[in-house]
Amino acid sequence: MKIYGDIQSGNCYKVKLLTSLLNIKHEWIEVDILANETQTNAFLKKNPNGKIPLLELTDGSYISESNAILNYLAFDSSLVGTCRFSSAKILQWQFFEQYSHEPFIAVARFIAKYLGLPQERKSEYEAKQIGGHKALSVMEEQLQLTPYLIGSEITIADISLYGYTHVAHEGGFDLSAYPSIQQWIKRIQSHPQYIAME
Amino acid sequence: MKIYGDIQSGNCYKVKLLTSLLNIKHEWIEVDILANETQTNAFLKKNPNGKIPLLELTDGSYISESNAILNYLAFDSSLVGTCRFSSAKILQWQFFEQYSHEPFIAVARFIAKYLGLPQERKSEYEAKQIGGHKALSVMEEQLQLTPYLIGSEITIADISLYGYTHVAHEGGFDLSAYPSIQQWIKRIQSHPQYIAME
Repeated sequence: MKIYGDIQSGNCYKVKLLTSLLNIKHEWIEVDILANETQTNAFLKKNPNGKIPLLELTDGSYISESNAILNYLAFDSSLVGTCRFSSAKILQWQFFEQYSHEPFIAVARFIAKYLGLPQERKSEYEAKQIGGHKALSVMEEQLQLTPYLIGSEITIADISLYGYTHVAHEGGFDLSAYPSIQQWIKRIQSHPQYIAME
Repeated sequence: MKIYGDIQSGNCYKVKLLTSLLNIKHEWIEVDILANETQTNAFLKKNPNGKIPLLELTDGSYISESNAILNYLAFDSSLVGTCRFSSAKILQWQFFEQYSHEPFIAVARFIAKYLGLPQERKSEYEAKQIGGHKALSVMEEQLQLTPYLIGSEITIADISLYGYTHVAHEGGFDLSAYPSIQQWIKRIQSHPQYIAME
């Protein structure tokens, strides 16, 4: 099994973290997004959408989209839901992550950390703060009720949201207003097989 | 079972279409997004993220995010994957839809159809065309190979992508450059239990 990814990308790190928690053997192939390595003809043949992470199975087939990969890799493990309802709640949080969280927090982080917050993207960066804080508030509300997003145990929903939340400060988000998120981050980091982003 | 939705929203229509294909009895509660009915205190108690569609189960619990709802409702039906790999491929297309398709095609449609393409949003509208055509190209490439997105049978991946693709022209997208998408649209519309958006 091969995983194409960039460890500095939260979307790729999610997958890396899961492989550690579940002891999944794989070959990690580092792909440099900033050098446009996801846009080469060779890579576009693997994933026509030109994005990482990308999972290559031993039969040569591919699965893209970080959260689809998490669901594939965690299949039948303790990190996925145990019933129809809990599986749907995990997906709910993962779709929330890709639509209401990542486009704000990951993009603000990208503009600040990788582009150095240039003047011409400053208004976009400011706009991202609003959506990002809204997403963090939704998470905080849930984490006041339950230690993990869908209940008392860690699932791939937590791994999905953890990816960019734990580096949200790099996008200008002060997490001190979100005590339950901060505790949840510590809870995940205390997992015996936790690995850091790098 | 209650479904809160606005039938003019592609995200809500996906759920409505699935209930028709699977004969799922439910009460449809129309919610007017433009009148901010998703932002009232009463609605935010049901879904803190303030979005529709929203599924309310008979025990009073809720599932939000259109694609999570599709997975819940189609559980164990012929419209979901039959193995670990096909389930992951369905999710791959659904996450693609929410990240690489909907934010371009649905938003361009919203700006053109509901706001009347005002001057101050024209540059945003133009930018959405680029991302939307990229997403349509990725779909076209797959649909040249298989009649439906993950193979020879319709799944909830098709329902997800159909939602906004079949009304993409309302967002300024000319589908004549995508013959395989056009045939796929006709294929879905010929389903005996197909229902139109309105």
